[in-house]
Amino acid sequence: MYKRFKQRIFEIIQASNENDLLSKIFDLFIIALIILNVIIVIADTFRLPDNIKVVMKYIDIFTAIIFTIEYLLRIWTADFLYPQYGKVLSRIRYVFSFMAMIDLLAILPFYIPLIIPIDLRVLRIIRVIRLLRIFKVNRYTSALSLVAAVLKKQSSQLISSMFIVALLMIISSVIMYNVENPAQPEVFTNAFSGLWWAVATFTTVGYGDIYPVTAIGKILSAIIALLGIGLVAVPTGIISAGFMTEVEHKTEAEKDYNQKHYCPYCGRRID
Amino acid sequence: MYKRFKQRIFEIIQASNENDLLSKIFDLFIIALIILNVIIVIADTFRLPDNIKVVMKYIDIFTAIIFTIEYLLRIWTADFLYPQYGKVLSRIRYVFSFMAMIDLLAILPFYIPLIIPIDLRVLRIIRVIRLLRIFKVNRYTSALSLVAAVLKKQSSQLISSMFIVALLMIISSVIMYNVENPAQPEVFTNAFSGLWWAVATFTTVGYGDIYPVTAIGKILSAIIALLGIGLVAVPTGIISAGFMTEVEHKTEAEKDYNQKHYCPYCGRRID
Amino acid sequence: MYKRFKQRIFEIIQASNENDLLSKIFDLFIIALIILNVIIVIADTFRLPDNIKVVMKYIDIFTAIIFTIEYLLRIWTADFLYPQYGKVLSRIRYVFSFMAMIDLLAILPFYIPLIIPIDLRVLRIIRVIRLLRIFKVNRYTSALSLVAAVLKKQSSQLISSMFIVALLMIISSVIMYNVENPAQPEVFTNAFSGLWWAVATFTTVGYGDIYPVTAIGKILSAIIALLGIGLVAVPTGIISAGFMTEVEHKTEAEKDYNQKHYCPYCGRRID
Amino acid sequence: MYKRFKQRIFEIIQASNENDLLSKIFDLFIIALIILNVIIVIADTFRLPDNIKVVMKYIDIFTAIIFTIEYLLRIWTADFLYPQYGKVLSRIRYVFSFMAMIDLLAILPFYIPLIIPIDLRVLRIIRVIRLLRIFKVNRYTSALSLVAAVLKKQSSQLISSMFIVALLMIISSVIMYNVENPAQPEVFTNAFSGLWWAVATFTTVGYGDIYPVTAIGKILSAIIALLGIGLVAVPTGIISAGFMTEVEHKTEAEKDYNQKHYCPYCGRRID
Repeated sequence: MYKRFKQRIFEIIQASNENDLLSKIFDLFIIALIILNVIIVIADTFRLPDNIKVVMKYIDIFTAIIFTIEYLLRIWTADFLYPQYGKVLSRIRYVFSFMAMIDLLAILPFYIPLIIPIDLRVLRIIRVIRLLRIFKVNRYTSALSLVAAVLKKQSSQLISSMFIVALLMIISSVIMYNVENPAQPEVFTNAFSGLWWAVATFTTVGYGDIYPVTAIGKILSAIIALLGIGLVAVPTGIISAGFMTEVEHKTEAEKDYNQKHYCPYCGRRID
Repeated sequence: MYKRFKQRIFEIIQASNENDLLSKIFDLFIIALIILNVIIVIADTFRLPDNIKVVMKYIDIFTAIIFTIEYLLRIWTADFLYPQYGKVLSRIRYVFSFMAMIDLLAILPFYIPLIIPIDLRVLRIIRVIRLLRIFKVNRYTSALSLVAAVLKKQSSQLISSMFIVALLMIISSVIMYNVENPAQPEVFTNAFSGLWWAVATFTTVGYGDIYPVTAIGKILSAIIALLGIGLVAVPTGIISAGFMTEVEHKTEAEKDYNQKHYCPYCGRRID
Repeated sequence: MYKRFKQRIFEIIQASNENDLLSKIFDLFIIALIILNVIIVIADTFRLPDNIKVVMKYIDIFTAIIFTIEYLLRIWTADFLYPQYGKVLSRIRYVFSFMAMIDLLAILPFYIPLIIPIDLRVLRIIRVIRLLRIFKVNRYTSALSLVAAVLKKQSSQLISSMFIVALLMIISSVIMYNVENPAQPEVFTNAFSGLWWAVATFTTVGYGDIYPVTAIGKILSAIIALLGIGLVAVPTGIISAGFMTEVEHKTEAEKDYNQKHYCPYCGRRID
Repeated sequence: MYKRFKQRIFEIIQASNENDLLSKIFDLFIIALIILNVIIVIADTFRLPDNIKVVMKYIDIFTAIIFTIEYLLRIWTADFLYPQYGKVLSRIRYVFSFMAMIDLLAILPFYIPLIIPIDLRVLRIIRVIRLLRIFKVNRYTSALSLVAAVLKKQSSQLISSMFIVALLMIISSVIMYNVENPAQPEVFTNAFSGLWWAVATFTTVGYGDIYPVTAIGKILSAIIALLGIGLVAVPTGIISAGFMTEVEHKTEAEKDYNQKHYCPYCGRRID
C-alpha cells in the first residue's frame, strides 16, 4: 500500500507517460509556476504599488513551499529513479544530479535570508533555469541532444577557431589603444576599452559608443570587421558540417542495413 | 451554357494555365492593383496635396469593389476547386482556406468603417499579404514549399535552440538590469530595458541607444554578443543540413530507381 | 604579313597564354592603369594642391587614350575572337558583348564632356568595373563561375525567401510608422523612415539613427531583429546546400565513371 | 653523456610526450609566463602606482631572460628536430621557421632599446602570438589544421567573392561620397569616409558615426546592407561545403576500403 502510493507519487513527479493525466497536470502546474516566477522577477524591476508587491511576496512564499515539497518528494522517490543503487546511495546520487542541483538553487535564495540577513531576491532569477524542464517533452529533448551532440563533436574545431579569435582580439585591442588613445583619450582610456571595441566590432554589434577616429584606427577596424565575417562563417561551416555528418551517419546506417538484408537486384529479404 | 461560363470564370480567376491569356491578364491586373495599394498605403504616411488624396480615395474604393467581386466569384466557383465536396461544403471549405481568409481580411477594413465609425485605414496594409499570390507562379511555389518543408522538418531543433536563446535573454536581462541600473538608472529603468538590450546584442543589431557602461556589464555584454554568433551559427547549421538532406533524399531516390531499373554493369534497362 | 601582325596583336590583348610574356606584360600594364585610375577617383574627393591635380589630369588623358586604342584594337581583331562569324558580324557581336560594353562605358565619360559641356568625372568610377579583368586569370574565373552557378541554381529559392523578406519589411515599416510616429514624429516622419528602420534592423546593421522608443515599437523591433537572423540563416543554408550538391555532383560523376569502367571486385579496367 | 643531456633538453623544450612530466611542466611554465606578459601588456595601458610598475619591469626582464635562454636552447637542439640536415643547416632552417621567427620577435623588442634609445614596449604585444604554442596540444592542432586545410582548399572561391566585395565597396564608397557630401560635408569629407561607411554597412557593424541622410543615399545604403547579407552567406556556404567535402572524403575512403576488403553480400573479409 505504502509502496504503491510512493510509486504513484514518483510517476506523477518524474515520469512523463503520455496517458498519465495527473502527471501531465502536475508538469503544467510546475511550468506555470516557473513562468509566474519569471514574470515576478521581471515585474520586481518596475516601480509597483504596495498591494501588488504584497501579492508578489505571497506568490514567492507559495512557490518556495511548492518547490521545497517537490524537491523533498523527488529525493524520497529517488530509489525508483535509480533502482540499481541502494536506498541511501540512490538519494545521494540524485541530490548531486544536474537537475537536482538546479532545483536546490531555485529554493535556496528563499531560505538563506531567513538565517543570514542578506537580500538574495536577485538570485530568484535562477528559477528561470527550471524552465529547462520543458525539455522533458520527448520531441524537444532529442532535438536538443542532437544540437548538443553536434556542438560537442565539433568542439575542438570550434575551440580552436575561438582561440584564434581571442588572440586576434587581445592583439588588436592593445594596438587599437595605442593608436586611438592620443586622439580620443577619454574613449580609449586603456586596453579594456580596446577589448570592448574589439568585441563590438568582431561580433558586428557596433553599439556606437566606441569607434576609431584616426585613419590607422579605421583601417585596423575595417580589417577586424571583415575578419568578423569569418567569425560567423567558420563556426557556421563547422556546425553545418557537424549536422550533415550526423544526418548522413544515420542515413548510411539505414542503407548498410538494407544492403545487408535485402538483395540489391530483386529487392527480396535475405536473412 | 451557364456551366461553361462558370467554368471559364473559374479558369480565369483560379487556374494558372500557361496558355490561358485571359487568366494571365487577370493575374497581372490583380497583382498590379495590389502593388498600387501598397504604394498608396506607403504614400498615405506622407503629407500630400488634397487632390492626390482624392485620387487615392477613388483607387481605394475601386480596389475594394474589384477585390469584393473577385472574392464573391471565387466563392461562387469553389465547387470547381473542390469537386469532391457538395455545392455548400465546397464553398464553406473555401471560405475557411488560408488564401480566402487573407482575401477577406483585405476587403473587410473597407466595409467595417461604413457600419461602425472607426478608422481602419491602417489595416489596408493587410492587402500587402495578397502579394503572396505571386507564389502561384509554379517555379516560386515549389521553391518556397521546399524552404517551408526544410524549416518544418528542422522545426523541433530550431525551436529547441530558440528556447535556449530565450532563456539566456531573460536571465541576462534581469542580471543586466541589476548590474547597470545603479550606474545609469534612466537607461536601464527596468527588466524590459534589459530585454531590449539583450535583443539588440544577441541579434548584433546594436542600435546604440542602450549599452552597458560598468565593467561587469561590459563583460556580460561581451559574453552575450559572442554567444549571439552562435544564435546565427546554430540555426544556419540546422537549416543547411536540412536543405542538404532534402537534396540528397531526392538524389538517393533517383539513384535507387536507377539501381533497380538499370544493370550496374552493362547499363541496360531491366524491368 | 599583315595577318600575322594582326594575329599577334590579338594574342597580346585577348589571349592569356601562360608563356606569352608580352601578353602578360600588357595585362599587368592595363590592370596597373585601372588601379591607378581607382586611386585617382578616390584622391579626387580630397582637397589637393593644384600641381597634383594637373598630374591627375594628365593621367586621366593618358588613360583615356590607352583605353581607346585598346578598345579599337579589340574591335579590329574581333574576327579572331569569333572566327565563325563574318568580318562585320563578328565586330558587331563583340561591341555588344558584356566586357566590350564595360570597356566603352570606361572611355565614354572622357569624350562626352568634350562635345556637351557637362562634368562626368564621377562616371570615371565605372573604370573600376574594368578590374573584373582580373578574373581572366584562370583559377579565379572557374572559382567565380562556380559561385555564380550555385547562386543561379538556387536563385528561385533565394528569390522566394527575399520576396518574403520584402513583404515583411513593407508590412512592418507601415505598422512601425503608425506606432512610432506619435511618439517621435521627427524621426518616423513617413513610411520611408519605417523602411529605412526595417532595413537597418533586418540586416542587423543598426546605425542607431532610427529606433523605436515605445513599448509596442520595441516588441515589434525585437521580432523583426530575431527574424533578421533567419534572413542570414535561410539563404546561407540554401547556398551551402547549393555548393554541396555541386561538389557532390562532381564526385558522383567520377564515381559513376569508375563504376562503369572498373570492376568493383578486382579493380581492373573494363571497356 | 653530453649527447644524452642535450637529448633530454630537446625532449623537454620541444617534444610533447604525454608521459614526460618535466616537458609538461616546462610547457605550462612558458604558457603561464606568456599569459602573465599578456596581462602586463594590458595592465600597462592603465594608470598604475609606481611600485606595481617596478614589479612589472622585473617580470619584463625575467621574461626576456627566460625567452632568450629558451630560444638559444631551441637553436642548440635544432639538429634533433631536423636530423636529416647537418649541424649548421638544421639550425639555419630552424631560425627561419615560422615559430622561431615569432620567438625571435618576442624577445627583440627587449634588446633593441638597449642599443638604440627608442621605446618598443608596444611591441611586447607580439609575445601574445606565442600563445599559439597551445596548439602544440595534439587535439587542437589537428582541429586547427583541418580548419586551415578547408580555408586553403576553398581559398580561390573565397578570394573571388572577396574581390567582388572589394569592387562593390570601392564603387559604392565613391558614389556615396558624391551623393552625401553636399548634404553632410563634414561627415562624408572624402572617398575614405565613403569606404569607412561601406565597411560598417557591408559587415553590418553599423557604429552609427556615419550614415546617409539623403533619400538616394539611404536607398543605396539599403542595397549595400542587403548585399552584406550575401557577404556572410556566400563564404559561409563555401566554408560549409569545404568542411562537408573534407568529412565526406574521409567517409568515402573508409567505405572504399570496406568495399574492397569485405564481401558486400556475406560480410566476410576478402584479401
